[in-house]
Amino acid sequence: MRLKDLAEHLGLSQTTVSRALNGYPEVNEATRRRVAEAASALGYRPNASALRLATGRAGAIGLVLRGADELGPHMSEFLSGVGAYMANREIDVLVTTVASQQEELAAYRRLAASQKVDAVVLHSPTLKDERAELLLDLKIPFVLHGRTNIGHPVAWLDIDNTGALERATGHLLDLGHRRIALFNGLKGRTFSQHREIGYLAALSARGVPFDSALIVNTAFTDEIAFRMAQSMLELRPRPTAFLAGSMMTALGIFRAIRQAGLELGRDVSMIAHDDVFPYLNADNMYPTMSTTRSSIRQAGTRIAELIAQVLAGKPAEDVHELWPVELVLRESSGPASP
Amino acid sequence: MRLKDLAEHLGLSQTTVSRALNGYPEVNEATRRRVAEAASALGYRPNASALRLATGRAGAIGLVLRGADELGPHMSEFLSGVGAYMANREIDVLVTTVASQQEELAAYRRLAASQKVDAVVLHSPTLKDERAELLLDLKIPFVLHGRTNIGHPVAWLDIDNTGALERATGHLLDLGHRRIALFNGLKGRTFSQHREIGYLAALSARGVPFDSALIVNTAFTDEIAFRMAQSMLELRPRPTAFLAGSMMTALGIFRAIRQAGLELGRDVSMIAHDDVFPYLNADNMYPTMSTTRSSIRQAGTRIAELIAQVLAGKPAEDVHELWPVELVLRESSGPASP
Repeated sequence: MRLKDLAEHLGLSQTTVSRALNGYPEVNEATRRRVAEAASALGYRPNASALRLATGRAGAIGLVLRGADELGPHMSEFLSGVGAYMANREIDVLVTTVASQQEELAAYRRLAASQKVDAVVLHSPTLKDERAELLLDLKIPFVLHGRTNIGHPVAWLDIDNTGALERATGHLLDLGHRRIALFNGLKGRTFSQHREIGYLAALSARGVPFDSALIVNTAFTDEIAFRMAQSMLELRPRPTAFLAGSMMTALGIFRAIRQAGLELGRDVSMIAHDDVFPYLNADNMYPTMSTTRSSIRQAGTRIAELIAQVLAGKPAEDVHELWPVELVLRESSGPASP
Repeated sequence: MRLKDLAEHLGLSQTTVSRALNGYPEVNEATRRRVAEAASALGYRPNASALRLATGRAGAIGLVLRGADELGPHMSEFLSGVGAYMANREIDVLVTTVASQQEELAAYRRLAASQKVDAVVLHSPTLKDERAELLLDLKIPFVLHGRTNIGHPVAWLDIDNTGALERATGHLLDLGHRRIALFNGLKGRTFSQHREIGYLAALSARGVPFDSALIVNTAFTDEIAFRMAQSMLELRPRPTAFLAGSMMTALGIFRAIRQAGLELGRDVSMIAHDDVFPYLNADNMYPTMSTTRSSIRQAGTRIAELIAQVLAGKPAEDVHELWPVELVLRESSGPASP
């Protein structure tokens, strides 16, 4: 039995039957029940392809990853948050992994052509993100996690990275630290630039000169952070405080501090950015870790909600959310040792 | 322009044109090029729904998660491995998140009805897994990560959990440890049972009595492990060695050891199971961590390959892979202190 036959049997349009079977709110409850009963009685099994052709909705959100490595702790927490929203709505997340940045653009083109997704979550934007430009061209609705400047309004949710770093740096300066190392994200990413701006603003406000030797731009892994922190601790005068871009980075810096025979929270201070990974809790570290905190999982859930709003017709220029970031002081940050 | 029109223009069947556009190996290179050129010249944009109806392939693999929490470090590494295989093949992973175990079965039924996926990766099996039984009923091809016993052959890949724990426990016994705590996974999961069997086998082989107070069955989080290890270190005589089910568990136990004023590798020993998370490296811990090691990412990639074999017609009973697990000795395990 095809959708067409079921629709004819009921004297309804295929679109109405299809929407009823998918629980769309446009169809009233009585009709929905009548359709469900007939489908059950006649043994009709909906076929996604047929349903999608009829309703024009794929029931899925797309996420493109550049390389398998991109599904690390940040992305998986974010995706958990997206999934938490989708779970009660029978909407799936279609994850496409590509092997390079060039192929990422091709992947969006394929998603547009195949109509397998209704919208896309765009992540880790650059200052002028060509993927965002392409998605506008392809007319695929999307919400950006982060911000970009492409001269056209896009829907976005971001955390206040500038404010977070300005406050954390300012706090360390107030404790007497003058050589503060910034372990920042990759160059060209918007969030890295925003964090650097906050860091520089705090230094500048207190008249502390900027030393480029104290800034590193890398991926957020324990291993890279460990090596970079080792070299940095060999500088003279050495940094007395570290701003770690993620909890993974903090673990690597912490290891280098211990290996140098220094004590965290006494000889050297650290404030880490905490995306709130459930398995790596700042309160559970030893010593406990001072952090700038914002849940990346909550951001994922909220972005899923915003996508639903965009699909319901809300204009992209009205979907702009900037989340404040908390500064949580614990044992890892203290006065500069003389 | 529809697929039908393009096929008529070329004098080919819709199936051939569809396969050519999707790069299926059944279509020779000359035909593929002819179809691509005509599609481009005539402005034909393939529509996934139409393609799928023609080819019967969704171009996606399904993965169902029970709750957003399930996308933790283990699952995301596993999924990275699956993605690494899919990346070069333009196959996507459709991630469905459900809010409860009951809904998981409904999700598989929906996947079967909608034909959105060609096959499913089934993970974290129980000893007699009802999801595996359902997938057989629904005739959805699947490969199991782990093993189950449902009286019907299924395709699976698993690591040798029994052998790993037997060797790790035996090593600690040989170092003089007699009270060895086992931090195991959830009861009912096949891998937890296999690990317990290996642990008991090693004790029994050396005539060391088993103490049920030294076994805990929990989820693998730092927080739970910390609390359980705290209580366990209050036992008298206390355990002199720990077998940690994951690196997250090891972090929590390590914290409890430090907080009790004990030194890991001297006062207390630990061997942890290492799924090879890139951001949590056993060599980088301080002290370095002895481990039983098997890459969960590699398992994901291999399972994706096995799914391709199953879809190509290989019988499920011929797809059984048991991977050995390495025991890697580092600083965290040493002789029992007198």
